[in-house]
Amino acid sequence: MSKVTDRSHQISVVPLDKNYNVGAYSVEGSVDYEDLVKNFGVLPISKELEDRLSAAAGGDLHFMIRRGIYFAHRDLPWLLDQYEKGNKFYVYTGIAPSGGMTIAHLMSFTMAQWLQEKFDAEVLIQIPDEEKFLARKEMGLTLERTHDLAYEDALNIAALGFDPQKTKIFTDTEYAGVMYKQAVRVSKHITFSIIKDAFGFGNDSNIGSIFYTSMQAVPAFLKSVQKGKNIPCLIPLGIDQDVHFRVARNAIEKLGYYKPAIMHSKFMPSLNGSPKMSSSDPNNTIYLDDSPEAVVKKVNKAITGQQSTAELQRKLGGDPEKCAVCQYYKYMFEPDDAKLAMIFEGERKGTLLAGEHKKDLAQKINSFLSAHRERKSKLKDRMDEFMLKG
Amino acid sequence: MSKVTDRSHQISVVPLDKNYNVGAYSVEGSVDYEDLVKNFGVLPISKELEDRLSAAAGGDLHFMIRRGIYFAHRDLPWLLDQYEKGNKFYVYTGIAPSGGMTIAHLMSFTMAQWLQEKFDAEVLIQIPDEEKFLARKEMGLTLERTHDLAYEDALNIAALGFDPQKTKIFTDTEYAGVMYKQAVRVSKHITFSIIKDAFGFGNDSNIGSIFYTSMQAVPAFLKSVQKGKNIPCLIPLGIDQDVHFRVARNAIEKLGYYKPAIMHSKFMPSLNGSPKMSSSDPNNTIYLDDSPEAVVKKVNKAITGQQSTAELQRKLGGDPEKCAVCQYYKYMFEPDDAKLAMIFEGERKGTLLAGEHKKDLAQKINSFLSAHRERKSKLKDRMDEFMLKG
Repeated sequence: MSKVTDRSHQISVVPLDKNYNVGAYSVEGSVDYEDLVKNFGVLPISKELEDRLSAAAGGDLHFMIRRGIYFAHRDLPWLLDQYEKGNKFYVYTGIAPSGGMTIAHLMSFTMAQWLQEKFDAEVLIQIPDEEKFLARKEMGLTLERTHDLAYEDALNIAALGFDPQKTKIFTDTEYAGVMYKQAVRVSKHITFSIIKDAFGFGNDSNIGSIFYTSMQAVPAFLKSVQKGKNIPCLIPLGIDQDVHFRVARNAIEKLGYYKPAIMHSKFMPSLNGSPKMSSSDPNNTIYLDDSPEAVVKKVNKAITGQQSTAELQRKLGGDPEKCAVCQYYKYMFEPDDAKLAMIFEGERKGTLLAGEHKKDLAQKINSFLSAHRERKSKLKDRMDEFMLKG
Repeated sequence: MSKVTDRSHQISVVPLDKNYNVGAYSVEGSVDYEDLVKNFGVLPISKELEDRLSAAAGGDLHFMIRRGIYFAHRDLPWLLDQYEKGNKFYVYTGIAPSGGMTIAHLMSFTMAQWLQEKFDAEVLIQIPDEEKFLARKEMGLTLERTHDLAYEDALNIAALGFDPQKTKIFTDTEYAGVMYKQAVRVSKHITFSIIKDAFGFGNDSNIGSIFYTSMQAVPAFLKSVQKGKNIPCLIPLGIDQDVHFRVARNAIEKLGYYKPAIMHSKFMPSLNGSPKMSSSDPNNTIYLDDSPEAVVKKVNKAITGQQSTAELQRKLGGDPEKCAVCQYYKYMFEPDDAKLAMIFEGERKGTLLAGEHKKDLAQKINSFLSAHRERKSKLKDRMDEFMLKG
C-alpha cells in the first residue's frame, strides 16, 4: 500500500480514503483508473465511441486509443457530432518545461499529431514557461532556464512531424500580449476557494501560481476569440491535467464559448515500475536526449514481470502487466497489435527472456531517438515557422 | 463620527478602532493624515526635505508640495542622493479606468509632469484596464468598456502637456507582452496571505484580482529591466494606492532592483465636503468632460465654510478648511500662494460672499477645462506617439 500525503485541507476529487491521488502537481500511489473516472466525473471511452471515432478518422484508430491508454473523455460524442456537421475542431495541448523532455511527454503530442493527420486539425501548443517557475519552488528554476527549456521542448515537439502550416507553438511569456487579456476574462469567474480545492493551494501559495490556471484555460477557446465564432476544441492530455479544465470549462462556458472536449491518457510507467514516469527520476526515465549507451544501460535495469532465474521464467512465465519492457512496447514502441500480442505472449509463457527482451526494446528506443534527432537537426533553423509571439 | 465597514477579517494597517480607513479599493470616514502616516509607516515631507527638493528642482517647488497636499513619502532623500550623484530617476504613475476622469484624478499626473519638467524625467503611465473589471464586479464593466475608457484617459493625461518624447502610456492588456513576464517574477514573492491582509480579499475573491497587484508593481522597475541597469523610480500617487507598493517593494528588492520612492498626496475633497472626490458620485464631482453649465451648476451647490446668511457671514466669517470652494483653489485652481491667502482671508473674515466666490471658481474651472479640451483636440490624432504596445 503506497503512502499518500495528507490532503485533508483539500476537497480532493479523489476521496481521502483512497490509496492513490492524482493532482495537477503530484501523482501518488498506484492509480486505480476505473475508480478515478468516477471521481473525476469523466466518462470511459466505450467500444461504441471507439468505433465512431475510427469511422470519423477514415477507418483508423490510434493504437493508444485501441489499447485503452487514452481511456476517458469529456464531451467527445458532442465533438464528433460537430465534426459530422462540418464544424471542424482544433487540437490544443502543451507541456510545462521543467527539465529534459521524456518519452512519456510525447503521448499527448503523438495523439495531437494523429488528430491533425486524420481530422485535418489545426494544433495549438502551449508551453507555459511560468508554470513550474511559479508552482515548483523547490526546483529552483529561473525564467531564463524555463525559456531555454521551452525552446528545446518546442523543437522536440515539432520534430514529431507536425505540419508547420497547421501547428503553432508558443510560450506564455512571449505570447502574453494575446494571452493575458483572455486569461483576465477567465480569472474573473474563478475564486480562490475553487483554486484551493482544485489544486490544494493555501494561503502560503504565491499569487502567480494561483492565477496560472487562467493562462492554461485560454488556448481552449482562443481560436474562437480570434475567428469571431465558436470553434470546437479537443484537448488530449494526461489525466492529471484534467483538473485545470474541470475548473476552466465552467468559466469558458460563462464567457460564451464551447467547453473544450478532452481525451485523457493514463500515465506511462517508469522503468522501475512506478505508475508514472517522472523527469525528476533520471535513472528510471528515458529522455529524448539520452545517448544510445544510456538507453541500453537504463533499459537493462528495468523491472520485468519475470521470474528470478531464466530457468524459472521458462517454466512459470511472467506477467506482462508488471513488466516495464512490455509496457513500453504497449505505450509507444510497438504500434502493431499482433506483434505486441506476441511479445506479451512470450513474456507470459516464458519463451521471451529478459536479456533479449530488453535488448530489443533498447534498439527500438534508440532507433526512434536517432530518427527524432535527425528530424530535429533539419528543423532547428525553421522553428520560426512554428512559434507564435505577440 | 463616520461609519466604517467591518474590516475585522483584514489585518488593516489602519487599526480597527479608528474612525476612518484608507484601502486600495475604498476610503472611508474622515481621514486623519497625521495618524495615517504612522499607520502606513511612511514619513511626512519635512521642511528640510521640501528645501532639498526645491534646490534640486532649480529653486522651485510645486504648490501641491508647498501646501502639504503631497504630504508624505518613502525614500525621497535616497532618490535625491541618487539624483545628486547623476543617477536620474524616472516617474511612474497611473489610473485605473472606471468612468469619466475627474479633476481629482489629475493630481498625480500634474505632479508627474512637474517632475518631468524640473528633473528632465521620463514618465511611464500605466492604465490597468483589467483592474476594476476584476476587482469591482458591481460596476458591471466589460473589458471593451475599460479599453475605451483607457484611451479617453490617455488623451486626457497627454493633454496636460507631457513631452511625447519622454512620456509613454500603456494599457495592461495591450502591453502584456512585456508586462506579464515581469509580473510573474514579482508574483512569486507574494503569497495569498499577504494579499488578504493588504487588500482585505478573501476566499471568494477572483484569482485575477488576487494576481493584479503584480501588474501594478512592474512599471516601478521596468526601466531597470529594459536598460539592464538599476534606475531609480519615483511614484507620485494618492495615499490609498500606497498598499500596492507596500507589498511590491519587498518583492522588487528581492528581484535585485531598487525599491521605488513614493510621494503621497491627500485626497481632493468632493464638492459636498466628503473627504475624497469619487467618480461614482457625479453631482459632487467635476469631470473633465463636464459642460460649462454643468460646472456652474455643481459649483453653485458646493459646500462652503460660510454662515447661513450673508449678514452673518459678514459679521462672523467662515472656515476655509470646511469650504470646498477654498479647497479647490488650494488643491488645483490657484497656484499663487499670495492670491490663495487672500481667498482664505476673505472667507475667514466674511468679506468674500458665497455667490461671488463660487462664480470665480466656476470660471477658473471652465477656463481650465476649455484650454484642456483644446489641447485634446490637437493631440487626438497623435496618441500613437504616446502609446506603448507589445
